[in-house]
Amino acid sequence: MKKFQVVGIGNAMVDVLARADDAFLASAGIEKGIMQLIDMDRAVSLYASVGPAKEVSGGSAANTIAGIAQLGGRTAYVGKVKDDQLGAIFAHDLRAQGATYETALAPKTEEAETGRCIVIVTPDGERSMNTYLGVTEFLSPDDIDTAQMADAEWIYLEGYRFDGPESHAAFAKAIDACKGAGGQVSITLSDPFCIDRHRDAFRVMIKDHVDLLFCNRAEMLSMYQTDDFDAALSQAASEVATVACTDSENGVHILSGSDRWHVPAVPTKIVDATGAGDLFAGAFLWGITNGYDLPTCGKMGNIAASEVISHIGARPEADLQTLFKEHGLIP
Amino acid sequence: MKKFQVVGIGNAMVDVLARADDAFLASAGIEKGIMQLIDMDRAVSLYASVGPAKEVSGGSAANTIAGIAQLGGRTAYVGKVKDDQLGAIFAHDLRAQGATYETALAPKTEEAETGRCIVIVTPDGERSMNTYLGVTEFLSPDDIDTAQMADAEWIYLEGYRFDGPESHAAFAKAIDACKGAGGQVSITLSDPFCIDRHRDAFRVMIKDHVDLLFCNRAEMLSMYQTDDFDAALSQAASEVATVACTDSENGVHILSGSDRWHVPAVPTKIVDATGAGDLFAGAFLWGITNGYDLPTCGKMGNIAASEVISHIGARPEADLQTLFKEHGLIP
Repeated sequence: MKKFQVVGIGNAMVDVLARADDAFLASAGIEKGIMQLIDMDRAVSLYASVGPAKEVSGGSAANTIAGIAQLGGRTAYVGKVKDDQLGAIFAHDLRAQGATYETALAPKTEEAETGRCIVIVTPDGERSMNTYLGVTEFLSPDDIDTAQMADAEWIYLEGYRFDGPESHAAFAKAIDACKGAGGQVSITLSDPFCIDRHRDAFRVMIKDHVDLLFCNRAEMLSMYQTDDFDAALSQAASEVATVACTDSENGVHILSGSDRWHVPAVPTKIVDATGAGDLFAGAFLWGITNGYDLPTCGKMGNIAASEVISHIGARPEADLQTLFKEHGLIP
Repeated sequence: MKKFQVVGIGNAMVDVLARADDAFLASAGIEKGIMQLIDMDRAVSLYASVGPAKEVSGGSAANTIAGIAQLGGRTAYVGKVKDDQLGAIFAHDLRAQGATYETALAPKTEEAETGRCIVIVTPDGERSMNTYLGVTEFLSPDDIDTAQMADAEWIYLEGYRFDGPESHAAFAKAIDACKGAGGQVSITLSDPFCIDRHRDAFRVMIKDHVDLLFCNRAEMLSMYQTDDFDAALSQAASEVATVACTDSENGVHILSGSDRWHVPAVPTKIVDATGAGDLFAGAFLWGITNGYDLPTCGKMGNIAASEVISHIGARPEADLQTLFKEHGLIP
């Protein structure tokens, strides 16, 4: 048995959650519902303009790994924080959830700080993310422990990391080590605009290396440059063994070879949409690595996504195993 | 008109909120429902032992001032943070709520960090607080701006500050400046064990300087070293112009001269009791400084306390003026 069911690689972030209305988004020049990269100056000025906030650990793949850990999965995370207070918060919250986290800290002397994402939550529960990457941008191949990757049944790659200067080399090192030891590769496309910045690199990676692709409808359309959702799904399925494409309240489409399933969403009141896709992926991967069939994994993903959007913050609060039991998915 | 309706002086803190059960409290040697002072080593080891947490600005008097500011009151806060990430969070959240906050920062070179309070919230909603004071312990008379105190209708003193080495001198300087310009002095007793540590100093301050005393039942009994609640209330009323003594779900007792009122609590589901007394005091002071009679101020206090215990975190989330309108207290 491999030591880890899933090892995630992503941008380590603390989320700064503030509520504001759509007029604020317009006045601050923030495009609703997506992730925008910002520099430290913009982070400071934007933070000064928002109301009282809450700080909670985030980071897309880290949320996924936290979800798997909460389910009792054997999991580890690779992503860079600095030796500062926000870095300590991030590391604590992952380890306290039961995940292994041992990426080397950027030293106190580093000018950049631990990354943070100023998440503006509008009254409709939608989140608009403004990301100062900080030291997490500089995760390099040196941070990839090949023994750890070889000891993973799956690695899970965060699409947002395509923005880092050495991220492609780091991903390649992780993929080689994992696949060389018989492991499999999953990836999330993360964001349509991130795809715009790196479409060719995404395409090559998907075709050549990915066994399981996570994305949402907007990302799928952006990836294949089309308005035809079904055509895009079919193309993805021709390139990747398994595709799980979420579509908000319309549930998830799962494609594997010639098989295709649609699993309806679990209705809930949306308080804060942050983390929905991350927790879908976490529960789905937990299901796969515990031997469940794909539609059941989809149900697990939808339940976990529903839990995380019902409260502020992108990590699960209710016990996910209990929810799976209530839905009759596990004994 | 004075510039400020209320200026608060207290321990500046970021709360680290984690959920745990009573068995954890027992194993960690934490006494339930009170505040314990801890050093940095204990803060580190305790933090390592709790689950994933959320960080939100706290500090007893700071919560009170945030409540007054959210109501639209003219208010300022004095309490020390360091020039670090948690200090920036604390300062942001107060200013973003509309309060003036200009205490000089402890420099980056200071060894102690911004204070934090590891709050363990048990399933019953009770909070057990473990406070690393950090730089806030060292607030000194130099940090008191006499012009600001003279420009306050009321100052609000946090009992927890009696633990700081120069706190008594700082309080004396603030009281002199405020009273010398015709202002009034309010205080909260904060905690029965804090009273045990400084009972004589509390007694002198109450008798000689305090116009409005906030406390809860346990603090009142500790203050006057008795089990006879009514006798303690009467003694307090003989020493202070106005007494507001909360008694959890039994509401609040307000005494002024020979007048006495009991105002029932506003029922709610307790999610996190942190900040109940702080927000009671905030709404009560807002009421007083806006000309409302004492029982109405008590109702406002109970409504604000009820709001803050209905969610995680010790600062108000719902609009308090809207709640006062719904209860018919303001037009």
